[in-house]
Amino acid sequence: MEARLKEDRVRAEKASIPELYEKGYYGRPKGNELELRCVEAAFLLYREKLKIELEGKALNFRAFFEQASLREKNFELKYIVYKDLRERGYYVQPSSTDFRVYPRGGHPGKTAAKSFVYVHSERAPLPVQELLEAVDAAENVHKQLILAIVDEESDITFYEAKTLEPKGEMEQYYPKIRAEGTFLEDRVIVWEKNSSKKLYEYGFYGKALDSERLQLSLVESLYLLEKGVLGLKDRKGKSLKPETFLKKASLIEEAFFRKFKVYRALRDSGHVAKTGFKFGTHFRVYRKVKSPEKIPHSEYLVSAIPGAFEFRLPVMSGAVRLANSVRKRMLFAIEESEELRFLDIGRVKL
Amino acid sequence: MEARLKEDRVRAEKASIPELYEKGYYGRPKGNELELRCVEAAFLLYREKLKIELEGKALNFRAFFEQASLREKNFELKYIVYKDLRERGYYVQPSSTDFRVYPRGGHPGKTAAKSFVYVHSERAPLPVQELLEAVDAAENVHKQLILAIVDEESDITFYEAKTLEPKGEMEQYYPKIRAEGTFLEDRVIVWEKNSSKKLYEYGFYGKALDSERLQLSLVESLYLLEKGVLGLKDRKGKSLKPETFLKKASLIEEAFFRKFKVYRALRDSGHVAKTGFKFGTHFRVYRKVKSPEKIPHSEYLVSAIPGAFEFRLPVMSGAVRLANSVRKRMLFAIEESEELRFLDIGRVKL
Repeated sequence: MEARLKEDRVRAEKASIPELYEKGYYGRPKGNELELRCVEAAFLLYREKLKIELEGKALNFRAFFEQASLREKNFELKYIVYKDLRERGYYVQPSSTDFRVYPRGGHPGKTAAKSFVYVHSERAPLPVQELLEAVDAAENVHKQLILAIVDEESDITFYEAKTLEPKGEMEQYYPKIRAEGTFLEDRVIVWEKNSSKKLYEYGFYGKALDSERLQLSLVESLYLLEKGVLGLKDRKGKSLKPETFLKKASLIEEAFFRKFKVYRALRDSGHVAKTGFKFGTHFRVYRKVKSPEKIPHSEYLVSAIPGAFEFRLPVMSGAVRLANSVRKRMLFAIEESEELRFLDIGRVKL
Repeated sequence: MEARLKEDRVRAEKASIPELYEKGYYGRPKGNELELRCVEAAFLLYREKLKIELEGKALNFRAFFEQASLREKNFELKYIVYKDLRERGYYVQPSSTDFRVYPRGGHPGKTAAKSFVYVHSERAPLPVQELLEAVDAAENVHKQLILAIVDEESDITFYEAKTLEPKGEMEQYYPKIRAEGTFLEDRVIVWEKNSSKKLYEYGFYGKALDSERLQLSLVESLYLLEKGVLGLKDRKGKSLKPETFLKKASLIEEAFFRKFKVYRALRDSGHVAKTGFKFGTHFRVYRKVKSPEKIPHSEYLVSAIPGAFEFRLPVMSGAVRLANSVRKRMLFAIEESEELRFLDIGRVKL
């Protein structure tokens, strides 16, 4: 079939429509011709199903590839992903979110598309708002959003990103007691044995300093302080209100309030949240802990991020990989003015 | 035994020397008394081996703990680590790097100390220069440097940090050919089949775009360009020198030159380095790749960091955890003016 490159589109002769469009779902008819995107045309050129000329001169694969790379931003990235999907038997159509992909065995006209595929380079930071928009656009029409990340060596890793409202199963979020603690340099100690025991047992708060005393983290302390379960004094014996404690904790830990809001949301929705330090995240989250003697598997790792956050993709990739290696889901809790949104990002094999 | 708190030291009566110092290796004799650090005194108070008073008034554990926290920076952190080590049967002495720890079964006077333990909070950033100094100080006297990181819930994770000069086993670092490539938007393509094959087979460079063409990453391209193995043109056919390519690549990738220097050092010392994207690091490193058909297990994950880098410890923890979960060592390549130093950080159980 004959075709011509014009700006960033390729126009193929009318005779190509039955085979390329009607059978192969390449391009879309426009007037008397078939209009192809550069990735489609490059793939057909590689498969020797198309001849492409520019200003009367035939372009070989290399010449077309160089031209397309000059004319379309991210052409190479998109071609790598398009080719990969096509060669694995998927019908793929260019769309507003890069590609629309049909389920295995399905094709345009027969089935609805299953996924929107969003192509991104490993190197470019990905603003979380851009990702959220793509997820919302997909979820609004009941599609799955797939993030195809092309690394510097042109390997593709596919991630599914979806929104989530996590729900825990704790019936009681904290023991109904009144404990007393001291705010030391950067943690809190509850000195009294019975309070220590109850906090630890009903809700898995803190960690034993020894058989009598319990250490609480800053987020745990503020949560219990707000709920009236904990009374707090500083080392000189002065009582601390939640607002004062929040200010002091914010000096110790950057972005403490954001982290606390995520902690509170997780606890208030019936989860048990503990530090995710060993996993490089803010929290590891259990849907239920009946007793600290029988700690179940934790379900999620959660990182609290600001609304203006930009993912550095190697970091995101490492976080998801680590979560998966310990059979947990990686969630990002996004702070958006007054509310929080949770984004679940997991690796998928297409 | 009776003791008094004065400034940030505790002085115990002479009678304590035989039991506490000579048997237990607590404190050190000073004049007619035994001088204890606050962590030692708190531990002895908890064990009920000591009574401590301040200005004539006896201090209970809580009162002493609050006082010590006011008088010594990081007292709580150090106490948590000191208590943990002592309770697991190690002899521990305060030293310039927080603690000197004796090997199991050993004690002062009988054996040399095995490790220097450096205590750090999860929350405080750790400048890599500070860590390097501690590692150098330990290695100069043939000790192991242990980093004890206390997380917000007072759990301790121990890491060993040591310097390393990685040596690979590749005999030939690149094929002796002259390949030609085009620098596209953000990667390079070698169009010719034979060159593509040789680059891929002798050194595991690049990734096949298809059966004829090879894609090279930016670091691979610059390395081969510098070695005269690759000739490079831009999309308009203009030849690119290494300096020009370096400039262009640095616009695409932040800190490209640092990353390249680490890549070059790894290749030039006989390794095969490929992207570590899936692991959230710059490189995964093989000591030898005989053929891309038989890729062995990669030994290291490597992150290139500047000399002024500050570790955020949850991030470091996640990186080490991920490396260990795939049976690799986590190395940090530190750029120090003209030279590179490699730091190997791994989790250890004491």
